[in-house]
Amino acid sequence: MEKFLQEAKAASRVLNTLSGAEKNGILKEMAAALRANTMELMEANAKDMADGEKNQLSSALMDRLFLDEKRIDAMAVAIEEIAGLKDPVGRVLDGWVTEDALKIEKVSIPIGVIGIIYESRPNVTSDTAALCFKSSNVCVLKGGKEAENSNRAIAKVLQATLEKNNLPRELISLIPDSSREGVAKLIKMDKYVDLIIPRGGEGLIKYVSQNATVSVVKHDKGQCHTYIDKDAKMEDAVKIAVNAKVQRPGVCNAMETLLVDKAIAKEALPKLKEAFDKEHTDLKGCSLTQEIITVAHASDEDFDTEYLANILNIKVVEGVEGAIEHIVRFGSGHSEAIITENITTAESFLNGIDAAALYVNASTRFTDGGAFGFGAEVGISTNKLHARGPMGIEGLTTYKYKIYGKGQIR
Amino acid sequence: MEKFLQEAKAASRVLNTLSGAEKNGILKEMAAALRANTMELMEANAKDMADGEKNQLSSALMDRLFLDEKRIDAMAVAIEEIAGLKDPVGRVLDGWVTEDALKIEKVSIPIGVIGIIYESRPNVTSDTAALCFKSSNVCVLKGGKEAENSNRAIAKVLQATLEKNNLPRELISLIPDSSREGVAKLIKMDKYVDLIIPRGGEGLIKYVSQNATVSVVKHDKGQCHTYIDKDAKMEDAVKIAVNAKVQRPGVCNAMETLLVDKAIAKEALPKLKEAFDKEHTDLKGCSLTQEIITVAHASDEDFDTEYLANILNIKVVEGVEGAIEHIVRFGSGHSEAIITENITTAESFLNGIDAAALYVNASTRFTDGGAFGFGAEVGISTNKLHARGPMGIEGLTTYKYKIYGKGQIR
Repeated sequence: MEKFLQEAKAASRVLNTLSGAEKNGILKEMAAALRANTMELMEANAKDMADGEKNQLSSALMDRLFLDEKRIDAMAVAIEEIAGLKDPVGRVLDGWVTEDALKIEKVSIPIGVIGIIYESRPNVTSDTAALCFKSSNVCVLKGGKEAENSNRAIAKVLQATLEKNNLPRELISLIPDSSREGVAKLIKMDKYVDLIIPRGGEGLIKYVSQNATVSVVKHDKGQCHTYIDKDAKMEDAVKIAVNAKVQRPGVCNAMETLLVDKAIAKEALPKLKEAFDKEHTDLKGCSLTQEIITVAHASDEDFDTEYLANILNIKVVEGVEGAIEHIVRFGSGHSEAIITENITTAESFLNGIDAAALYVNASTRFTDGGAFGFGAEVGISTNKLHARGPMGIEGLTTYKYKIYGKGQIR
Repeated sequence: MEKFLQEAKAASRVLNTLSGAEKNGILKEMAAALRANTMELMEANAKDMADGEKNQLSSALMDRLFLDEKRIDAMAVAIEEIAGLKDPVGRVLDGWVTEDALKIEKVSIPIGVIGIIYESRPNVTSDTAALCFKSSNVCVLKGGKEAENSNRAIAKVLQATLEKNNLPRELISLIPDSSREGVAKLIKMDKYVDLIIPRGGEGLIKYVSQNATVSVVKHDKGQCHTYIDKDAKMEDAVKIAVNAKVQRPGVCNAMETLLVDKAIAKEALPKLKEAFDKEHTDLKGCSLTQEIITVAHASDEDFDTEYLANILNIKVVEGVEGAIEHIVRFGSGHSEAIITENITTAESFLNGIDAAALYVNASTRFTDGGAFGFGAEVGISTNKLHARGPMGIEGLTTYKYKIYGKGQIR
């Protein structure tokens, strides 16, 4: 593993010599190569699908794993879109002349070697490899065991394109030892690896965060809330709450708990129940909620659970202060929304809560790179530092200062 | 420790309610209180000095530890200067309207609770507390054992000012258990602490980096180089090289190794030796250097040593590529300089090396917050992410997105 990472690190220097046009040309070749190798990719995927059936993977997992011509084409299109992005490295982020007449430029540069740990979907392999290549980073990929044949086949196609262009195949690497021990080694190799991005279950992310000596940008859970204030437009409130819960319950920016201002609970809760019943949402509520509508009881444990399913906690709170108090206690710092027409109440909410994304009168479902207008998305970071919230390709860069003098000394 | 940090975290919320003017008023009161308590501070410091003498601290350490009226006044002035800085939180860093007509504002916010581990100089206690307070962060301070009485006295004065203003004293805390075990606990408390900044010896920083689960911004060693190219103005080259080494050898941005282009080694080395001899610099050189001037031999171990003293390695290299190769192998990513009049050579150097600060025709000694024009300095980060190089007060902030809608759903 050490030798492998040493080679990956050494390979990273060659990326600095490529122009943006060269990188984009190679990315387009990679897209074409994926299309040209559709049969090979489908054959490799068929092995994973057969193994998955043998291992009785859930139908949801099997669907995520599956590749056909259309999905392989979508992977190629994604790479072409990444080729179309502005080059994130070499940008002058800031610049000034100091009192000593030194001219300082703060310039974006690649991070270096990035390890990415992810699960089942094989398209993550090509997406991530392309994002890293575009930003002049070496990627070390550790995909899910269940997608091993597919991931290998994809990496082989991308590496062949690198070699055709006289570039080292190490620029896009699969981790040589994909066992738990391999991961344990990878996350301690701070000499060669500059960043680890774990995407996956809570267990994996916790393990990586607790044990890595390499910097980690987590893509962790979202315990998201929507608070309906007494000054909300009720029609908007119902529409936004339903959207935040049911439009795609299995993702991290979906709402898990709805907070309702006590001042309007009697009016609002029956309307909300009617709307959620139509969506077959499984409702749980605090005792005050239960006095107004018939729902199961929500415990503190429920308020702390990311359901990732069509289940919703409801809690009646004392105004915006009550909402803030609940969110400070149970929120995970991901996405929180307030529905209100009152500007002072809205500002209290925006300033009183520490989260990546805070919404006034909109659904928490908008927390993603596409909706934010970042183009291709690396993920949604739950880190507080380096990258927070939707993480575009700029999240794969850092910076250096270039300082131009004419003989200055101190 | 856990209860203590829980209270620190809880206290952090009150900082969001203070206006910039209120914060600056309190900082000025703190400065006045330090001056008013000069006698008490000097008494506490006298105890540390007596202990230091008993424990036979070096005269350099004793000097760093010492407080008199003038130094206490300087601490107060530093706080007043921090009061005069622009408020780093609440700034709109970016803003745009998305395709869904959501108005997004990216706003700077405090990081939260910051643990700072540092050594002997008591003024770091007041500087850091003021920087954290100004940026609306809670600080948990762990100073050196040898300065314990001084640090406690300083913290007491600052805390009294907080309490006079009806603020919790937990906003500026000294760690309750300052033993090695206390530090071990602190750096694992990611539930309550958002960032750890270790400043001090290599051992401490390595220990914290390897064991923390909290994010760490390191202030680590500087293995800095200056490369004199064949196209250098020789007069500038000598002046810059001498400055980078001797102006203050004990700091991280001082040069440790001088690289000289083979094409001009015969001409340059005698001039350099003459200049360094005047400064009583202890010179070591590679075998090629030794063929031209009489110096001790520099081994690979020497090239890897941060002397922090008036000792210099010299190596003859094959042009800028040779210099880059040496720096990639031995550099610590801190500050590197090239002396040349050739623009293409300069750009090769700037692009070929990954370091926080890269100089053309200037001394590496300029890598600090003051020289960069950042005002008060938190330190010089050797991290690659979050904050890199000179770290001003902005390095104590992160951001959130505030998103204003009018009923948007997905």
